[in-house]
Amino acid sequence: MPVTRSALVTGATGFIGGKLAQRLAGDGWSVHAILRGDSDESTLPPETVIHRFGGQMERLAEIVNSVMPDTVFHLASLYLATHRSEQIDSLVQSNITFPTQLAEAMIAAGCRKLVNTGTAWQNFGGDQYNPVNLYAATKQSCTDILKYYHEAHGLSVVTLKLFDTFGAGDMRRKLVQILVDAAATGETFDMSPGEQVVDMTHVDDVIEAFVIAADRLAGAEQPVDETYFLSGERLKVRELVALVSDQLARPVNARLGGFPYRQREVMMPVAVPDGAQLPGWHRRNTLRSSVGTLVRGE
Amino acid sequence: MPVTRSALVTGATGFIGGKLAQRLAGDGWSVHAILRGDSDESTLPPETVIHRFGGQMERLAEIVNSVMPDTVFHLASLYLATHRSEQIDSLVQSNITFPTQLAEAMIAAGCRKLVNTGTAWQNFGGDQYNPVNLYAATKQSCTDILKYYHEAHGLSVVTLKLFDTFGAGDMRRKLVQILVDAAATGETFDMSPGEQVVDMTHVDDVIEAFVIAADRLAGAEQPVDETYFLSGERLKVRELVALVSDQLARPVNARLGGFPYRQREVMMPVAVPDGAQLPGWHRRNTLRSSVGTLVRGE
Repeated sequence: MPVTRSALVTGATGFIGGKLAQRLAGDGWSVHAILRGDSDESTLPPETVIHRFGGQMERLAEIVNSVMPDTVFHLASLYLATHRSEQIDSLVQSNITFPTQLAEAMIAAGCRKLVNTGTAWQNFGGDQYNPVNLYAATKQSCTDILKYYHEAHGLSVVTLKLFDTFGAGDMRRKLVQILVDAAATGETFDMSPGEQVVDMTHVDDVIEAFVIAADRLAGAEQPVDETYFLSGERLKVRELVALVSDQLARPVNARLGGFPYRQREVMMPVAVPDGAQLPGWHRRNTLRSSVGTLVRGE
Repeated sequence: MPVTRSALVTGATGFIGGKLAQRLAGDGWSVHAILRGDSDESTLPPETVIHRFGGQMERLAEIVNSVMPDTVFHLASLYLATHRSEQIDSLVQSNITFPTQLAEAMIAAGCRKLVNTGTAWQNFGGDQYNPVNLYAATKQSCTDILKYYHEAHGLSVVTLKLFDTFGAGDMRRKLVQILVDAAATGETFDMSPGEQVVDMTHVDDVIEAFVIAADRLAGAEQPVDETYFLSGERLKVRELVALVSDQLARPVNARLGGFPYRQREVMMPVAVPDGAQLPGWHRRNTLRSSVGTLVRGE
């Protein structure tokens, strides 16, 4: 009988984190989730062990010590496309302080395998580092801090840089879902001119990448610090509008150009350098085959 | 009559910040200092305008708006050679959250010239980025965040990466001062084996670099984001012990090898790449000529 592996997942109440918790549980992992005091646990698989955390370092150390996870999957983040001044504190707290404390607790407990989540928005204009927004800058800061734990304490890290993601049951106000919902209602709404290219990956494929990353960590003989992109299908936003309309055989009444591009709109996602796509990872779900699954029930 | 320039200085109660405030006041700047609620202002030049700050974004915005500084000199930092778990919060707060809020307040007020302070400890082993400790990782994170304000909002930044510094009146427990004090008392004390090379710059030369950096910002026609090293005299710690003893004509009873090197001891400071020393900056003070000034009065 195979030994059960244990996973500690942050951000498990989010869309991707929740799907990952389900997948890991299905694969036979023992799944533990760190949840903030006020997070709703009802979307988690029932076998998930919940650990409540309010920001105290000692509490986090206690959680990691009790779970002794084989792998920590860090998906929690505060995402803000644009921020307000008074949100800086929470942005730094969620995206820098918390993962720093997590890495610290892992090292203290002797747990050294971390799958971390980054964003392709750290690479505006294709630069090695040029953050689209403050959110992306805090994600870069996080990887800088994890590098300390790697170099000084042998933490193994695989960071997966995500582009756009989609999938059934997504409660985030993401583009594809907005278009699918609009096809259902027929309502007219404004959009940007839509010439920007987006890079879309189905959540099941994203989850597969997290599992592959965990396998890489399990198989590594030396501490690693690796970063990979998860690049999916690329198309212009206006093409995506047409694709959704086509697949659902209903009009999507988007007024392209109804509002302007936002500041620092990403017109073309960063090109993935050779060797920077996660090895062994292949997308299985296409937009065309998935759009139908996004139609919400009544 | 020349127009008075105004400076907003953080970390002005520290050794380098205090000297900078004096120098700027002497050069005719109007000097403003941001101080935490509990900081002692008695070491500041009497003409300094004190602004108390307790961590609230609105208060910081109010300060920057009222001062409208030509240049902000950011020297405040929490320095910890090694950290304890429970210090992560303060380390991130001081070295990341605060400068983020400061940059945010500057942009909102239309102030776009910032001299920032980094550390050569961001470059362990000569790597482009490899932090000696968590402190250095938080300094790297800060420059990543400032890059966002540069790219998205036109903030001009010159970051000065300091090695070791020394000077009369230094209350930090720094190596040179410890040796000078030991020569005075004659006491015997333990040290590491002393084969590591240190890179030492006199505080007056450091201050000169901050003034030159402010001039660079004043003269720049486009937003800049530049980083320079302030590399000084290099010698082995054991040679420094001998130098202090020589200059003061008194024995320094250091037991070299009395304790081991620390984890990740910097044995050789990063080599300064071509063009990475601050242009126009020249050291005037040598260790040999300065050691005598460090002897404390009774």
